[in-house]
Amino acid sequence: MRVMGVDPGLTRCGIALVESGAGRQVTALDVDVVRTPTDMDLERRLLAVYTAASHWLDTHHPDVVAIERVFAQNQVSTAMGTAQAGGVIALAAGQREIPVRFHTPSEVKAAVTGSGRADKAQVTAMVTRILGMQTKPRPADAADALALAICHCWRGPMAERMLAAQRQAEAAAVRHREKIAAARERAADTARERAADTARERAASAAQGRSGS
Amino acid sequence: MRVMGVDPGLTRCGIALVESGAGRQVTALDVDVVRTPTDMDLERRLLAVYTAASHWLDTHHPDVVAIERVFAQNQVSTAMGTAQAGGVIALAAGQREIPVRFHTPSEVKAAVTGSGRADKAQVTAMVTRILGMQTKPRPADAADALALAICHCWRGPMAERMLAAQRQAEAAAVRHREKIAAARERAADTARERAADTARERAASAAQGRSGS
Repeated sequence: MRVMGVDPGLTRCGIALVESGAGRQVTALDVDVVRTPTDMDLERRLLAVYTAASHWLDTHHPDVVAIERVFAQNQVSTAMGTAQAGGVIALAAGQREIPVRFHTPSEVKAAVTGSGRADKAQVTAMVTRILGMQTKPRPADAADALALAICHCWRGPMAERMLAAQRQAEAAAVRHREKIAAARERAADTARERAADTARERAASAAQGRSGS
Repeated sequence: MRVMGVDPGLTRCGIALVESGAGRQVTALDVDVVRTPTDMDLERRLLAVYTAASHWLDTHHPDVVAIERVFAQNQVSTAMGTAQAGGVIALAAGQREIPVRFHTPSEVKAAVTGSGRADKAQVTAMVTRILGMQTKPRPADAADALALAICHCWRGPMAERMLAAQRQAEAAAVRHREKIAAARERAADTARERAADTARERAASAAQGRSGS
């Protein structure tokens, strides 16, 4: 499985391509950081990120795009730009019918270091070791994109099975509700028919009573 | 000026086209709400919003796209989806070299009702009156998109002049800093030359002193 990992951002956007092999084997195929100047208009910055991501998708043909899930925490304005950068990359994947999955920063940290609260240095060190790289990937955005791709290689298949099971359960629940509703409908029909029969019988017996008197 | 107003969102995205005339005259040319189902994958929802916005841009050729500036407040997950929807629309505008401008909800409310804290009903009522519409635009997202476009028609030209003035001031500040730096450089050069001259004079007089002794 080829996973394109994305650490979204407007100023720096990390993009990495990792291939998973047997077991937990992962190989880094490419990594880069897309930068856009802060004084550029937002629509041009988004276009630059989108163009770079589109080029990656068309060159590397990943099976899935794994993007870091953004949370609005302290820096609201940055979070919005980050969400928008992730959005245009998800769009580029959607245009090519490549599925997009999201992982939270703590899921990524837990996957590569074993702790959801690892710091950037620990993540970079583990990424370097896992991928058997000669030098540490720089800047941190490149390491984060690689970590995200590794996280998806390891967690993705399980997450997909969970998602499939969840959807199956939802579909079963829908069928169950439909069955119950149909049964209730039939019961109501039967009750109405019986009521109508009873009413007819009563009317008939009343008519007989009148004709008999 | 033709303004495409956008109230971004994934579940409901309001899009409106308003043309400004002399003074504060504004005419609504089109308004619609793009909807995507909540159980659809994010990348497909973004693609649906992007496709609809692209079609609008290619059909109506607006001079500018005015998008509501999103703030992450209480509902973080919704704010992220809203930011991403706004992002792919800004991207569609950027691909066509159509400028994108943002207005905050309170700027929009203040522009159309006179109060930055007007409620949805007041905004809808004023939009209906300003545009001379027979019926109130529904749902609220449609009214918000119209309000946003009206806001830009009225505030946009002033905002553009402010932006141009600000950029001019920044450019002047840069030129000023360069001038100061160049002057300092020249002063430093002169000081170095003088120091070199003094050193040469001293060396010469010392040599004369030695030859004289």
